[in-house]
Amino acid sequence: MAVYQATTSAPVNIACIKYWGKRDTTLILPTNSSLSVTLSQDHLRSTTTSRADPAFTETKLWLNGKEEDIKSGGRLERCLKELKKMRKERIEDKEPNAPKLSEWNIHVASYNNFPTAAGLASSASGFAALTSSIAALYGLNTFPSSSSAKPSIASPSELSLVARLGSGSACRSLFGGFVAWEAGSLPSGTDSLAVEVAPQSHWPTMHALICVVNDAKKGTSSTSGMQRTVDTSALLQHRIKHVVPQRMEAIIKAIKEKDFDSFAKITMADSNQFHAVALDTAPPIFYMNDVSRSIISIIEELNRVSLEKTGHLLAAYTFDAGPNAVIYTEEKNVKQIIEIIVRYFPQAESNPFPDPFKLFGGKQSAAVPLPEGFNENVAKVWEVGSVKGLIHTSIGDGPRGLLWLSI
Amino acid sequence: MAVYQATTSAPVNIACIKYWGKRDTTLILPTNSSLSVTLSQDHLRSTTTSRADPAFTETKLWLNGKEEDIKSGGRLERCLKELKKMRKERIEDKEPNAPKLSEWNIHVASYNNFPTAAGLASSASGFAALTSSIAALYGLNTFPSSSSAKPSIASPSELSLVARLGSGSACRSLFGGFVAWEAGSLPSGTDSLAVEVAPQSHWPTMHALICVVNDAKKGTSSTSGMQRTVDTSALLQHRIKHVVPQRMEAIIKAIKEKDFDSFAKITMADSNQFHAVALDTAPPIFYMNDVSRSIISIIEELNRVSLEKTGHLLAAYTFDAGPNAVIYTEEKNVKQIIEIIVRYFPQAESNPFPDPFKLFGGKQSAAVPLPEGFNENVAKVWEVGSVKGLIHTSIGDGPRGLLWLSI
Repeated sequence: MAVYQATTSAPVNIACIKYWGKRDTTLILPTNSSLSVTLSQDHLRSTTTSRADPAFTETKLWLNGKEEDIKSGGRLERCLKELKKMRKERIEDKEPNAPKLSEWNIHVASYNNFPTAAGLASSASGFAALTSSIAALYGLNTFPSSSSAKPSIASPSELSLVARLGSGSACRSLFGGFVAWEAGSLPSGTDSLAVEVAPQSHWPTMHALICVVNDAKKGTSSTSGMQRTVDTSALLQHRIKHVVPQRMEAIIKAIKEKDFDSFAKITMADSNQFHAVALDTAPPIFYMNDVSRSIISIIEELNRVSLEKTGHLLAAYTFDAGPNAVIYTEEKNVKQIIEIIVRYFPQAESNPFPDPFKLFGGKQSAAVPLPEGFNENVAKVWEVGSVKGLIHTSIGDGPRGLLWLSI
Repeated sequence: MAVYQATTSAPVNIACIKYWGKRDTTLILPTNSSLSVTLSQDHLRSTTTSRADPAFTETKLWLNGKEEDIKSGGRLERCLKELKKMRKERIEDKEPNAPKLSEWNIHVASYNNFPTAAGLASSASGFAALTSSIAALYGLNTFPSSSSAKPSIASPSELSLVARLGSGSACRSLFGGFVAWEAGSLPSGTDSLAVEVAPQSHWPTMHALICVVNDAKKGTSSTSGMQRTVDTSALLQHRIKHVVPQRMEAIIKAIKEKDFDSFAKITMADSNQFHAVALDTAPPIFYMNDVSRSIISIIEELNRVSLEKTGHLLAAYTFDAGPNAVIYTEEKNVKQIIEIIVRYFPQAESNPFPDPFKLFGGKQSAAVPLPEGFNENVAKVWEVGSVKGLIHTSIGDGPRGLLWLSI
């Protein structure tokens, strides 16, 4: 009996220019273009295995070991339908001997290596892994790391169209490095896809520190929140038409020139503007809390001091639809930023910082003096656990092919 | 020896359409019109006594009993200069026997009956009281309560031009009831003044509950904050040009028709939009904290339930440049709102609610059931002191003349 199975992993991405608002809620077409940095799968990833078998009586999905209902006409079905169509038209219709995988049911199992409690959006990496795994199963894509000399039958941008049907921001996880999701203008959505702005290798010293913030209260889901903003915000249309287009242009230029100052300024401004339009919604939507705001104050103060001393910014914060901060900075600055963050947000002894880049030589970060001129009163020292964990990672690559079985 | 002295008091006002941004920082000319409700001086007021004497060797000012430096060319001097000019041109030049008060130094003493720690902006009531007190000293104004049959020589709108030079929002405290500050367009600022939209008597059942929120951190001053927004926000100009003008028109209509639902919707939307443009500033400005946000969630939930049951909203929150909430509601709803607020924000036993309107018949508010259908998880129950006090007041009148001495 033949076995057809593929395992891939896909990365998390964190937007610098935020996606907030759909112009088509079924096809998941956004009101504006967005741009993200792909984070390394060495630290954060979704891993998905897909298997096709004529003996499967139905298509099934497990998330983190738990079987999920597959809603008829739902997001998974829409992705699967597109992939089956590609398999049929591009392979089975052309190679009469190719097995008719598109006609078989499949089983899909997906795992995130980060806990849901981390508050990181898993739908982006999840749908990107699902798309690339089924595409690999169907022979539609090859991977940079693969030994296959064949070019992919479906490009990452084409697969991003499929992932977008699952979760908008998932389309950006089909590439490594810096990725733009072009809003497009066609009602069909065929021009609303992800493109690579610059690969991981262009700016490998770009690192990220995620501050996982304790959250007492579940916020508004981004799916319902963004449409409430579309319906009620008096400022959103101005953002869409007049602010985002020039920010997209400016940040792409900054990335190409590795101009961290411009990159940081735009990233922080756009995070704040996204939360501003969320607040300009009726009823208002809040994702940041007082801890998030203290992190902003600390990074702004660090940048103020750095600008005064060196003429350059040190770091950029950005917040998605939750209280967690993602801090982008050059690799050489990560240690100092961790030291300052843990000064204001003491970490539990039972939960030591894992230090994947060995910044602290096996020791925990000790109290160090603040930089000269730093106003220590920009934030209070919070109780242990207010920031319940730190994740240090770097810019990363796109989906990875891990295992194919076709035997 | 003759004594020339006048004492007046002036009210606090809380804006429904917010003033945020100056087009002229010296003349204090705003980027947009604004609208406020004047609160009752029975509960909150600034009281100012001015005295002119040819023997005074310099002009002096005491605030809450502490002498203040009078900055040359500063705000007080600008107000005083205008009032002296009015006195000279309208009285001394016409009545040769009138004492030349405009040539004498004056002593001014001002008191607020609410502690600075309450976090209520005292500059509005303070400069309104100062202006009306010196105007009374100079014989420029009479008061509704005065027995004088003479019409005022300077109208409240004219005096609002003077108060505006001291603190922008002070101009709105020259009237009771509902007050518009018309932005005007002249570079001289002579058309940037306050006008009465409706007097206190038009809607006397309009009440206000102020939740005084404990604030760990001093926020950005509104004077510097608003100019940072003017300089850096990509959304503010849209608000100024396209949002505020139609909101002003709509809220004036709502007030004239005593349409609480429209009044509440616009008031809440404009508070949120003001905080949105503050957040859309570089670096971002935060005035609300997690306690403020819990108050918003509670009022939004109360309104949701009320809308479902009665088709009408119950209350409107608004926040100025600080974390305190002001809740506008009809008199009949105040008791219920206090009961819900103290449920989520227990009050210290040492600091009982003073209950000026005798809503609770001498007893403290006891725990009462939430309204049917109210989702109690919209906020957590906070520790005692998170809301450190409640002030219940109503819509009020304009400046009051308390005592003239001209003997």
